[in-house]
Amino acid sequence: MDDSDKPLPPDELGRRLTEVYDLVGPLYRRAQRSVEQGSAAEGLSVGVRAVLALLHRHGPLTVPQMGRAQAISRQFVQRMVNDAAEHGLVESAPNPAHRRSPLIRLTGEGRAAITAVLDREHALLREVGGGLTAAEVAACVRVLGAMLEGLDHVADD
Amino acid sequence: MDDSDKPLPPDELGRRLTEVYDLVGPLYRRAQRSVEQGSAAEGLSVGVRAVLALLHRHGPLTVPQMGRAQAISRQFVQRMVNDAAEHGLVESAPNPAHRRSPLIRLTGEGRAAITAVLDREHALLREVGGGLTAAEVAACVRVLGAMLEGLDHVADD
Repeated sequence: MDDSDKPLPPDELGRRLTEVYDLVGPLYRRAQRSVEQGSAAEGLSVGVRAVLALLHRHGPLTVPQMGRAQAISRQFVQRMVNDAAEHGLVESAPNPAHRRSPLIRLTGEGRAAITAVLDREHALLREVGGGLTAAEVAACVRVLGAMLEGLDHVADD
Repeated sequence: MDDSDKPLPPDELGRRLTEVYDLVGPLYRRAQRSVEQGSAAEGLSVGVRAVLALLHRHGPLTVPQMGRAQAISRQFVQRMVNDAAEHGLVESAPNPAHRRSPLIRLTGEGRAAITAVLDREHALLREVGGGLTAAEVAACVRVLGAMLEGLDHVADD
């Protein structure tokens, strides 16, 4: 029996999360590069890919909702949405909740493009080694989610 | 008793790791923004901060070693190193192993600057909530490490 399943005291939490933090940067840049290669095959920029993936996962969203979910500025999301719309990948739909902020949704073409990209990413991720368990992956999702939420609070200050 | 401590079969692994992957992007961008704010206080760009943090963690490194560790191009690392050297934060030292690729190391001023930034980040991370345990954080580090290694292999193809 050890203390590994007890909540960490703040100082040790800070120290241990630095290890996580130090992996996020390199992982993001590596992933970004793989995504660039994959998306390039479909003719998608990384930004357009992010918008399409978000709509694929959540269904129709407004531009401000997408900005909050991805922690990027509304202006950047709007540019990506315009770019995607020009290529016929997304379209606007009336928003019953907010007349001034239309819902953005995938077109059939957009759905096909993002599905191809996500299938390729899935094929890549299923080859990850190390014999990872469901419990480990669930713990990872919980830790990253808590960090994201923690940093959100700071950003809101 | 469930199967949560058994290695995941590849298809489910791919599916579950997508959840992790989907958190890495937003987390990176949020963290980047916090780092920008923190580093800005010390007058460091995000790139220079990454170089100094790497030298702080690993001791003296060559430019190619730093590029590999951070998954960024050698050219970009070299620009950051030049920038840091101009500000007196790093200096070159002879490399016994490779005459043509000097070791880069922190100056006293560089060490003070990066320590201040890391202290601030540590203070931020120690406030992360959710009652995270040591076992969860360790699992997260293991999962992210395996993903990074998996994507490395792809990039090496």
